[in-house]
Amino acid sequence: MRILSGMRSTGKPHLGHLITLDKWVELQEQGNQCYYFVADWHALTSHIDSTEGFREWTIEIIKTYIAAGLDPERSVLFIQSAIKEHAELFLIFSMLVPVPRLERMPTYKEQREQITDRDLSSAGFLLYPVLQAADVLIYLADGVPVGEDQVYHIELTREIARKFNNLFGEVFPEPKPILSKVTKLPGTDGRKMSKSYNNFILIDNDDKSLWKKIAPMMTDPARKRRTDPGDPKKCPVWLYHKAFTHSEDELNWVMEGCKTAGIGCLDCKRVLHKNLVNRLQPVWEKLREFDEHPNIIMDIIEEGNRKARESARETMEKVRDAMKVSW
Amino acid sequence: MRILSGMRSTGKPHLGHLITLDKWVELQEQGNQCYYFVADWHALTSHIDSTEGFREWTIEIIKTYIAAGLDPERSVLFIQSAIKEHAELFLIFSMLVPVPRLERMPTYKEQREQITDRDLSSAGFLLYPVLQAADVLIYLADGVPVGEDQVYHIELTREIARKFNNLFGEVFPEPKPILSKVTKLPGTDGRKMSKSYNNFILIDNDDKSLWKKIAPMMTDPARKRRTDPGDPKKCPVWLYHKAFTHSEDELNWVMEGCKTAGIGCLDCKRVLHKNLVNRLQPVWEKLREFDEHPNIIMDIIEEGNRKARESARETMEKVRDAMKVSW
Repeated sequence: MRILSGMRSTGKPHLGHLITLDKWVELQEQGNQCYYFVADWHALTSHIDSTEGFREWTIEIIKTYIAAGLDPERSVLFIQSAIKEHAELFLIFSMLVPVPRLERMPTYKEQREQITDRDLSSAGFLLYPVLQAADVLIYLADGVPVGEDQVYHIELTREIARKFNNLFGEVFPEPKPILSKVTKLPGTDGRKMSKSYNNFILIDNDDKSLWKKIAPMMTDPARKRRTDPGDPKKCPVWLYHKAFTHSEDELNWVMEGCKTAGIGCLDCKRVLHKNLVNRLQPVWEKLREFDEHPNIIMDIIEEGNRKARESARETMEKVRDAMKVSW
Repeated sequence: MRILSGMRSTGKPHLGHLITLDKWVELQEQGNQCYYFVADWHALTSHIDSTEGFREWTIEIIKTYIAAGLDPERSVLFIQSAIKEHAELFLIFSMLVPVPRLERMPTYKEQREQITDRDLSSAGFLLYPVLQAADVLIYLADGVPVGEDQVYHIELTREIARKFNNLFGEVFPEPKPILSKVTKLPGTDGRKMSKSYNNFILIDNDDKSLWKKIAPMMTDPARKRRTDPGDPKKCPVWLYHKAFTHSEDELNWVMEGCKTAGIGCLDCKRVLHKNLVNRLQPVWEKLREFDEHPNIIMDIIEEGNRKARESARETMEKVRDAMKVSW
């Protein structure tokens, strides 16, 4: 399969990203042809007034892709805004989508209602899923690893592919969403992860700062004293365990110990910390290597962009030929 | 001044285009730096389902630009979709414009209400003025010759320039509309010129087919018989005279003759025909030259695209630097 997915450059990578990356690595290891990018144009839709960090974050994200196990020899790692063809296909696709179809997107309605600290009134934000369709279809991807909320966007992508093919002849596949069963991590305070709450754990933290983030983590509010039994289902730390503790024994120990007040919250958190350090150690090492040889990452980015551009150009030639507007 | 304007490739050029071109030639002759293009991406906003003719019409329009007096040595003549940078700037600008601002555009509301034979529900059509802003600002144009209905679009262009400059530092000028006093030509049947009415006069007609279009033209409906006096103010032919008859004597002769029933409608039309043939003769000759040497026009287009691309790229480098998203 041809796979495409991306992450927005609106901040430094955190543990939520790591979980997504595990899935991406798995798809790579299965021998799929993978395109993974940093969506800096998408980041503009909500962060047009704070682009200062974009470049640094973009580089940081590509570093993390590789540190987490993506192999630039096998997967194409690239930056959206370096491939201008995305913008051309976005423009063409914008002619194929009715405005009410976009206004009715559940993600759009939800975010317009819930996010109040950012201005999401722009046309660019409304057309976010159209740009996403261009991202996916320009590489003729047939599989897109996404979270559940993004399934609507893939449905729109399929509609656009169908509409284009009907009008101009078969150019695009109809991609399918690839859903993984992974738990969505909450913030360390139990709320949704968000920059404004500063409630996420960055990947580039070390052993000590990791503990500083884990120790004060919110737990089941009903467990006020060490002797009160707790309910893991109401505890954000449990969701972190589910993502990063792989030993059944440890998971059972946490579950039982919490329910029976056999262990305290700090005991539970110490195990999480240990497992996270184990998981992150090789990532940190790889990140440190990049810090010592900053040119390596720039070369990788350039090479990834080159490969992506080549594929994108091939598709755009087909698109222009099909539409009979080739110059 | 730096001037930019364009025509959409939705059909063959007609007399309405010629009047616009007179203004463009004037601006060229005044020594302005002019960029004139064929807006084939704009044509998509309303004609996505009929692109077959685009390429031929685009070439036809560029031929007409030159036949009408534009000089490819002095003015940059080019094709919108050949300059991919327009799409990139369009994407960026879409982040700067609130959806309601676009929905309130008088041109948008009007066309959505009045045009019923085409599907104008697409996001691309809503964002038409955003693409227009990109067209204008990517060449740092400060003057845009437009019809009155387009003044709103230039106002939005100015807003976008201002917003971008505020966020990222001074990159764009705030362009001004250049309005000309020329009469808007009605269709030969007195209605609005429209493809579906087939009521326009093509520029590439010859002497005879020109007369076939003029002879049956609608006149003042009150003038039923040769002996009834007419009112030029109610006659479409009079508007054509105002555009193409330059002799004061002839204009007076038409005006008086009509009001007093001193001349018949065919007498009046014969003078219009004579003047139009005089006006079009050199245009036809030039067009015939292109037909004999089709390579010439392709070379001109390529050279124009090259020049436009160079300017557009220069601007986009400034844009990306200002936004700190340069790759």
